[in-house]
Amino acid sequence: MIFEDGERIVFAGDSVTDMGSLNPVGEGHWNNIEHLGRSYVRVIENLLITCYPERKIRVTNSGVSGNTSRDLLERFDRDVVGLNPDWVSICIGINDVWRQFDAPELTEKHVYIEEYEKNVRIMIEKVCGKVKGIFILSPYMMEPQKGDWMRARIDEYVAVCKRLSEEYGCTFVNFQALYDKLLSVRYSAEVSWDRIHPNQIGATLMAREFLSKCGFDFNR
Amino acid sequence: MIFEDGERIVFAGDSVTDMGSLNPVGEGHWNNIEHLGRSYVRVIENLLITCYPERKIRVTNSGVSGNTSRDLLERFDRDVVGLNPDWVSICIGINDVWRQFDAPELTEKHVYIEEYEKNVRIMIEKVCGKVKGIFILSPYMMEPQKGDWMRARIDEYVAVCKRLSEEYGCTFVNFQALYDKLLSVRYSAEVSWDRIHPNQIGATLMAREFLSKCGFDFNR
Amino acid sequence: MIFEDGERIVFAGDSVTDMGSLNPVGEGHWNNIEHLGRSYVRVIENLLITCYPERKIRVTNSGVSGNTSRDLLERFDRDVVGLNPDWVSICIGINDVWRQFDAPELTEKHVYIEEYEKNVRIMIEKVCGKVKGIFILSPYMMEPQKGDWMRARIDEYVAVCKRLSEEYGCTFVNFQALYDKLLSVRYSAEVSWDRIHPNQIGATLMAREFLSKCGFDFNR
Amino acid sequence: MIFEDGERIVFAGDSVTDMGSLNPVGEGHWNNIEHLGRSYVRVIENLLITCYPERKIRVTNSGVSGNTSRDLLERFDRDVVGLNPDWVSICIGINDVWRQFDAPELTEKHVYIEEYEKNVRIMIEKVCGKVKGIFILSPYMMEPQKGDWMRARIDEYVAVCKRLSEEYGCTFVNFQALYDKLLSVRYSAEVSWDRIHPNQIGATLMAREFLSKCGFDFNR
Amino acid sequence: MIFEDGERIVFAGDSVTDMGSLNPVGEGHWNNIEHLGRSYVRVIENLLITCYPERKIRVTNSGVSGNTSRDLLERFDRDVVGLNPDWVSICIGINDVWRQFDAPELTEKHVYIEEYEKNVRIMIEKVCGKVKGIFILSPYMMEPQKGDWMRARIDEYVAVCKRLSEEYGCTFVNFQALYDKLLSVRYSAEVSWDRIHPNQIGATLMAREFLSKCGFDFNR
Amino acid sequence: MIFEDGERIVFAGDSVTDMGSLNPVGEGHWNNIEHLGRSYVRVIENLLITCYPERKIRVTNSGVSGNTSRDLLERFDRDVVGLNPDWVSICIGINDVWRQFDAPELTEKHVYIEEYEKNVRIMIEKVCGKVKGIFILSPYMMEPQKGDWMRARIDEYVAVCKRLSEEYGCTFVNFQALYDKLLSVRYSAEVSWDRIHPNQIGATLMAREFLSKCGFDFNR
Amino acid sequence: MIFEDGERIVFAGDSVTDMGSLNPVGEGHWNNIEHLGRSYVRVIENLLITCYPERKIRVTNSGVSGNTSRDLLERFDRDVVGLNPDWVSICIGINDVWRQFDAPELTEKHVYIEEYEKNVRIMIEKVCGKVKGIFILSPYMMEPQKGDWMRARIDEYVAVCKRLSEEYGCTFVNFQALYDKLLSVRYSAEVSWDRIHPNQIGATLMAREFLSKCGFDFNR
Amino acid sequence: MIFEDGERIVFAGDSVTDMGSLNPVGEGHWNNIEHLGRSYVRVIENLLITCYPERKIRVTNSGVSGNTSRDLLERFDRDVVGLNPDWVSICIGINDVWRQFDAPELTEKHVYIEEYEKNVRIMIEKVCGKVKGIFILSPYMMEPQKGDWMRARIDEYVAVCKRLSEEYGCTFVNFQALYDKLLSVRYSAEVSWDRIHPNQIGATLMAREFLSKCGFDFNR
Repeated sequence: MIFEDGERIVFAGDSVTDMGSLNPVGEGHWNNIEHLGRSYVRVIENLLITCYPERKIRVTNSGVSGNTSRDLLERFDRDVVGLNPDWVSICIGINDVWRQFDAPELTEKHVYIEEYEKNVRIMIEKVCGKVKGIFILSPYMMEPQKGDWMRARIDEYVAVCKRLSEEYGCTFVNFQALYDKLLSVRYSAEVSWDRIHPNQIGATLMAREFLSKCGFDFNR
Repeated sequence: MIFEDGERIVFAGDSVTDMGSLNPVGEGHWNNIEHLGRSYVRVIENLLITCYPERKIRVTNSGVSGNTSRDLLERFDRDVVGLNPDWVSICIGINDVWRQFDAPELTEKHVYIEEYEKNVRIMIEKVCGKVKGIFILSPYMMEPQKGDWMRARIDEYVAVCKRLSEEYGCTFVNFQALYDKLLSVRYSAEVSWDRIHPNQIGATLMAREFLSKCGFDFNR
Repeated sequence: MIFEDGERIVFAGDSVTDMGSLNPVGEGHWNNIEHLGRSYVRVIENLLITCYPERKIRVTNSGVSGNTSRDLLERFDRDVVGLNPDWVSICIGINDVWRQFDAPELTEKHVYIEEYEKNVRIMIEKVCGKVKGIFILSPYMMEPQKGDWMRARIDEYVAVCKRLSEEYGCTFVNFQALYDKLLSVRYSAEVSWDRIHPNQIGATLMAREFLSKCGFDFNR
Repeated sequence: MIFEDGERIVFAGDSVTDMGSLNPVGEGHWNNIEHLGRSYVRVIENLLITCYPERKIRVTNSGVSGNTSRDLLERFDRDVVGLNPDWVSICIGINDVWRQFDAPELTEKHVYIEEYEKNVRIMIEKVCGKVKGIFILSPYMMEPQKGDWMRARIDEYVAVCKRLSEEYGCTFVNFQALYDKLLSVRYSAEVSWDRIHPNQIGATLMAREFLSKCGFDFNR
Repeated sequence: MIFEDGERIVFAGDSVTDMGSLNPVGEGHWNNIEHLGRSYVRVIENLLITCYPERKIRVTNSGVSGNTSRDLLERFDRDVVGLNPDWVSICIGINDVWRQFDAPELTEKHVYIEEYEKNVRIMIEKVCGKVKGIFILSPYMMEPQKGDWMRARIDEYVAVCKRLSEEYGCTFVNFQALYDKLLSVRYSAEVSWDRIHPNQIGATLMAREFLSKCGFDFNR
Repeated sequence: MIFEDGERIVFAGDSVTDMGSLNPVGEGHWNNIEHLGRSYVRVIENLLITCYPERKIRVTNSGVSGNTSRDLLERFDRDVVGLNPDWVSICIGINDVWRQFDAPELTEKHVYIEEYEKNVRIMIEKVCGKVKGIFILSPYMMEPQKGDWMRARIDEYVAVCKRLSEEYGCTFVNFQALYDKLLSVRYSAEVSWDRIHPNQIGATLMAREFLSKCGFDFNR
Repeated sequence: MIFEDGERIVFAGDSVTDMGSLNPVGEGHWNNIEHLGRSYVRVIENLLITCYPERKIRVTNSGVSGNTSRDLLERFDRDVVGLNPDWVSICIGINDVWRQFDAPELTEKHVYIEEYEKNVRIMIEKVCGKVKGIFILSPYMMEPQKGDWMRARIDEYVAVCKRLSEEYGCTFVNFQALYDKLLSVRYSAEVSWDRIHPNQIGATLMAREFLSKCGFDFNR
Repeated sequence: MIFEDGERIVFAGDSVTDMGSLNPVGEGHWNNIEHLGRSYVRVIENLLITCYPERKIRVTNSGVSGNTSRDLLERFDRDVVGLNPDWVSICIGINDVWRQFDAPELTEKHVYIEEYEKNVRIMIEKVCGKVKGIFILSPYMMEPQKGDWMRARIDEYVAVCKRLSEEYGCTFVNFQALYDKLLSVRYSAEVSWDRIHPNQIGATLMAREFLSKCGFDFNR
């Protein structure tokens, strides 16, 4: 398993990463220390300690609800780089797209694909070479119908993530593909109220997908 | 306009009809009388008094959140028939379908199409001939992709509503067709969080559709 | 209909405009974006999207409870001009008068008619020529008895609004006349608790009156 | 002063009498005993103890918000007669009239003048001859314009109170005349939000009027 | 009656004056303007408007809970002098004494009699000659036993008030004598929980005493 | 020390005994078991476990706020006898007296001395001979002035307690004498807000007094 | 994996099983259906759907905080047998032991080992032969020191579980052994506040242990 | 008894000292002065006034929850030295150790033994010679098993306290030894939920231990 004893992973993102964590940055196993929230980050820590209890891996939640890539970039130095992580995970872009659809008149809140690519690229470059590895977690929508307008747009942003991951040698985690597979046998309402925010089932699904890229062994 | 001075309309339904109204039955223009909620029923009363202030039309909200057709049938005598309405509106079926998709293991909460048809038929027969008119408001989903599993199922229930309306001479209000038209130019997230519960924009849209079947004149 | 796709309307005013909107400025269709409140502004947006869904019109609520014309003038640059509106609506003056009657000893809170005229004039001049149109919405009281002291005073302020509208070519919306007509067949207690703040029925009535000046077609 | 040491006065009524008192019956000087509310009843007790501290007079608030004469009659045996009062005060009728104006469609909540007269008459007869004195406190509206529809209706109910008081030898307290006099120099908004429920100023005005019928001396 | 139309009275004091008023300064007849609290100041305004409705007298509550004469002096310029009163009332000293008894170890919170006299004197001199009249309302304790330690100390502070009133020609209102008289027929627990803070009965008693020095006529 | 391992003490009383305990009966060391409150009973348990940790003594709080001896007698079988105590403590009578002074008009709430004696006698006889010992804890008032009306009345009830204790061989704990001694050097306001309900200092004082009758050794 | 499509598992227990679930019985994937809580039961469902999405397995939480085996037995027919489970899991006994240590005087709340064995045996026999399998989940304490009094007692109850499991062919899940292993490398405070109630890390650990007995494959 | 009339004791510490006191510094007998919390400091004041009522000893709680010795040192000048105490008590170190065990990855929150010794030494030197006496209250854990990892670490910190006390002539209060003795006959769960924070029983135990070093006589 790639995470070694004493290493720190910082998970940057939006509400999908945040889910009740202390803002802007939260961590710690128990509530009275610093809060980790209840997103996939929480599940990843649960599984790491369950399966690798002898390794002390510091898991930090740097997700803030409502963030677009523009918002995350603005705080990236303070909330990610400044924490001296060994590993960095970035999961951003859903709000970049969502605002285009739920608030079409508020155009100053939209982040279009060119800016998105630029923002993510800058974030990658800020940590590239300084950390042991970078994870790019794709935006997604729990909407299997490709004809859905927002889903179609999300796909374009996912493609940006994939391309940048390849360009910079990041580990690419394709949450959209993950949910597509789930939704071939389950209906989205079992996992999410709004086809974006997952319940604990979705958080577990995402955590497993992340860990599957890390040489994680559930049965050790 | 078909509603005359002194008449009473009772709107039966689920959360889409209820939306904060007093349970099981609420009415009245102001909060300290009896609560009408903030669904399309509220907007219908707003528009009736705005455009026909000289007619005193009693608008009663008999919607209860979470109701399936089975639940509504159980309370139909008390909450609809017992109120001696001149007009009856029934908008039911969303939860009959929804539970099949968001709680597939809880099968005792599912109401399949045969039972749904039977339930709606009994309700119609309980008031048919006793009132001046019956409105059947179709279930719907703010999901324009016909390939969506739940949308496809909803369509079958809409068809039942249409068939029963024709059989019994009820006024059929097709909310599914209404939303399909809206969603050809607007994205669902502008109107609903979960593709079912409308905000005030959706409530207004539904109220206008209802009134369009009633000879309502906005400009008088 | 005069409002075109991509245009922005800013509604400035007091509690009658505000009614729960985000202060000082709120907008957006859904609660988690920016709050539009539940006044006639909310109903105008509901009706615009219902009847003209293909046009993206940005509706902004710049009402703040308790504002007199003096208060509004003070924040007019920031909360109206600074938003670059295409259309501006001003509905102010009720508190200018009300404080004279409910707090007669607190004279520093009274805004008498000369200052009122001056304040509204300055506001008009700040946007005149820069926007496609200005709406002056008159103050009002849901009190049909002309002998009522406060109603008599309100009438003087309404006259100022009418005169300034003519002078500057603004669209004048006479809410006082509107309510006088309603109150010839309905009692004020059905629409308002204190003869000023309308419930949803009153908000709808006011929204229809506003839209009737805009070439709005309910039935398209 | 007519109230002697050891006597008990029970004040029956609606929200104007209730104003936060314990329901259905409240009394006692301090909050942890039994609650007297903050209506004119509270002020009467304040003034009685201030000016006649040596007399122990038991003041009981039997007002319940929203009560019509029909509602009060229903609980009159339990909440008035059953308390063995020496003096009884009845202030009822505002809601009998109000519902006709703020809820015109909810006709089952209206109490028209014939029933009102009958209800008050029965109440008087239930205590007449058993107590030292009965006070009939008229309904009222803080609306000096006689042309106001509800005010005009109230006047008819006031006349019933006056007539019954004369017929049965009750002390008649004319709150409507009292407020008419006040409103010749003050505007209603200083005393009430809705022209019915008084603030502490109105409660004091009403208490003084009541006590002026009782040989009360403020300066002793 | 000494207060003329258009005049302003400012009541400075501690919790006995404050009792829920807006801090540091509150006024206005109704809750949504500025809050007057529920102390004797509230009752004075109630009685002034009840008996002299044609005079517009501005009543301002400048009481702050917990204030000693040292605290009041510190804010006297801002909260009393700066309001341009026509009349000033000062009721201070209870906390100067109380802290000596309920917090004997916290000596920095004690205000002994020399400082008290100096503080009150400075306050008087700040307004003397600038206003139409000054009222000195004595501290008090609802404790009729002169042997009580705190009561004995209060008596010394009352004497200071009396002496200063005479020296500067202020109107002296002796609340201690007032309560002594009441407590000859009533037990303190009917009026106060802690022998200091009065309920509405006590507030009324104190208001009447104040007004008795002002040529106030209850029966006009 | 008289309480042996395995024995149970039940403390019956009013708010002075209750002070936040579970009603009608509470016990247990920690909050999630059963609540003991924060009165002298709590302090007694604290001291027993601190000084005699090897003895498991069950301490039960059977105090209910507002109880008079009449109220306590009514529930004595259920809340004291029915718990099979080894020792019983009764502290009642304050409310019997208090209501005579803070609610003089509500005579049905007064418990005069003859009834008080009868009530306490019956309680004693219900457990006398069945338990190892009975403690009679006197009512009291933190009022050292014997001229105080309520204090004088309390003294009469204390005398009843003393007399009954002697008659039945109960252990008499004189809380009045205890507080008289404290108040010779400390002012009541340091221990109580209303001269009845003690803070933790008073609760400790009372607990020590109780334990001083039990052969309790603080220093073992 | 042993759980087939369409089967139902009912998890009976105390607070360790309950952890916020709807009482007495809760289930469903999303909050507005029926609540599953956040214990190991929640994690088991998360993992089942994550890894076996195509199987619809109904997971029911029948845990109630504070239950001893005596309490659970009392409701076992209604809350377990009556639900017609295919599989039953029983995790009980911690409170049987805990009360002996945190409330030693409240002996009626203790469930000693003989009764515990009898209670669990009866529960097993109620479902044995009717279900496809029974899981006995041992009580535990996150206390690795065998000299700890409560840990020592827990060990005896664990032994009962093991023996009964063997006798009846139940699947035995040894949570005590599980935690002993974890605590050889981690300190208890990372997982629990009180050495009993686990955080999400502990819940995950327990879920994995349970699933390891079920042929569960994390990587499929 | 060593504390004389007029002296002040300041208790510095963490949550064990704080327990609800006003932060950073609280004192006073009654809630509305300044809050003392409910830790052993509260019990010490209770016992001092109970047994030595004629001495006015000022007891100040300078405990802040979560403080390590590093945090306390940072505020020591302001919250201890600046209060001019006659006596100083320091109880610190639990969080220095605890964070090493409940948050092993958050190393910047750990205070290891060298720094701890340095921090406590500086604090002692800041007051040594300026006050009449210094108390060093040892950290502790209610864990009698010496093999417990955290207990073992605590023991090292206790030893530092003991050594420094001897070096500087401070009074050493060994809370660890105190709890070890208690836990030889009682189980920790009776006194604490988490083996650190005591309930009122523990607070009393600690207060007695402290006072036993002060020549305190419970029976005087």
